[in-house]
Amino acid sequence: MGLMMEQLSASKSFGGFHKRFRHNSQSLDCEMIFAIYLPPQAEKTGAKLPVLYWLSGLTCTDENFMQKAAALRVAAELGLIIVAPDTSPRGDKVPDDENGAWDFGKGAGFYLNASEQPWAQHYRMYDYVTKELPALIEANFPVSDKRGISGHSMGGHGALICALKNPGRYQSLSAFAPIANPSNCPWGEKAFSKYLGSNRETWRQWDACELLKTAKERLPILVDQGAADSFLAEQLKPEALKAAAEAAGLPLNLRLQEGYDHSYYFIASFIEDHLRHHAAVLSQ
Amino acid sequence: MGLMMEQLSASKSFGGFHKRFRHNSQSLDCEMIFAIYLPPQAEKTGAKLPVLYWLSGLTCTDENFMQKAAALRVAAELGLIIVAPDTSPRGDKVPDDENGAWDFGKGAGFYLNASEQPWAQHYRMYDYVTKELPALIEANFPVSDKRGISGHSMGGHGALICALKNPGRYQSLSAFAPIANPSNCPWGEKAFSKYLGSNRETWRQWDACELLKTAKERLPILVDQGAADSFLAEQLKPEALKAAAEAAGLPLNLRLQEGYDHSYYFIASFIEDHLRHHAAVLSQ
Repeated sequence: MGLMMEQLSASKSFGGFHKRFRHNSQSLDCEMIFAIYLPPQAEKTGAKLPVLYWLSGLTCTDENFMQKAAALRVAAELGLIIVAPDTSPRGDKVPDDENGAWDFGKGAGFYLNASEQPWAQHYRMYDYVTKELPALIEANFPVSDKRGISGHSMGGHGALICALKNPGRYQSLSAFAPIANPSNCPWGEKAFSKYLGSNRETWRQWDACELLKTAKERLPILVDQGAADSFLAEQLKPEALKAAAEAAGLPLNLRLQEGYDHSYYFIASFIEDHLRHHAAVLSQ
Repeated sequence: MGLMMEQLSASKSFGGFHKRFRHNSQSLDCEMIFAIYLPPQAEKTGAKLPVLYWLSGLTCTDENFMQKAAALRVAAELGLIIVAPDTSPRGDKVPDDENGAWDFGKGAGFYLNASEQPWAQHYRMYDYVTKELPALIEANFPVSDKRGISGHSMGGHGALICALKNPGRYQSLSAFAPIANPSNCPWGEKAFSKYLGSNRETWRQWDACELLKTAKERLPILVDQGAADSFLAEQLKPEALKAAAEAAGLPLNLRLQEGYDHSYYFIASFIEDHLRHHAAVLSQ
């Protein structure tokens, strides 16, 4: 049964509950853990709350955002459910980078469906976060049909492609320091060449800047980027996203935040703006 | 020079900066790392801000509170500097529990001065957090002479004894889920018998409930305790603190928080109340 799951923990926070669950993922062919924050409003009989999917960055698990983003206070106020999946398939049978690199393989699934061996069997994070996990959430929790998506770095880009590839499926979209144009940066080129192969034509359907060229989605996008982020120039390239959004006529609010780096200390500083950006649409 | 230190990192957060420093501690005879949050007000010329010392619990380092407590937003609003030391001496030359236990030795200094071998040379966290670290902070940062102290679990008790043993030195005091009466619980008895020896008479000067019997300090104490904390009955014993405070005539506001556990999800939920409790006194 794809809709079964096992509760690992429950911690009350801001009147609601942070919970972790393990389940057997069919799309990833392995066991996965995800975290969910259920605000106090979720306890009301008949409640149906909007849900924000948060996609984390390289090396993260379901835990980083829930522990470090200082998001739960605002989610409790807004009545927003937040779901944080892991960043790759996991477990001994899942292949990993041969050198144990932190920017490829486990902890670095890039939210795409791999086509190349030995990755194609398990590395299908796109199917997992856009289809299987939402189905699991919608079968087990009091969620409405309103979905938002956001994320950080690799996960910021993941949020962009999940929304751009599924017009109408998400009603709100934002990102922190996304790897905006992975086809043209070292992290992305390494991951795409292994997961997708050497033909760069096939990369275009997994790159936000390329997808924007033909995007039917018209969601306004909020992006925060630290100006002191050490990955800014080489890996993140927000100017590419800005140019692509302008060419596509898609409303992008790109905020360069003076002095901020790539860490959760940056995310925590601006997560409230993002949650309000999502809730303004999702809670209508 | 005891007042020298090396900056390891600086991350902007809520307009201020989270920074980590390494220095050579004379009282602990080893290198130590501490974290400090400097709110945006610290950048003003001539500013002198109050400082809250946060003592963490078993297994923690300087990082847990700063990453997980969701405290920096409120500290930025209130103009409160927060200092988070490590929980024990560190390094290869520092002896540790022979079985690598997490509740004794490294990560478990209990904020006392050990008298027994092999612990007495390095395990002097009381001197470190009440004297050496404040001197270092006051020599290097724009702090006023207003000091508050708080902490969690082992560190909640640490905050209590640091204040009770130094009347007038701290102007505000609070704790989350303190190990209230370590002379009478397994964690405390294990640590005290090794650090202080088997003579329980000597334990009394390191136990908050004993110190309250002769306390000259009259600070109001705010304590939050999760009612679903799995350590509540066996290790934490807030009822002992309540009885001791009542007998001493010291104002204790002990709040039993329904459904909350021992984690930082609990701390994050109530840290704002604690920071305002401190700032109400310290910022006058």
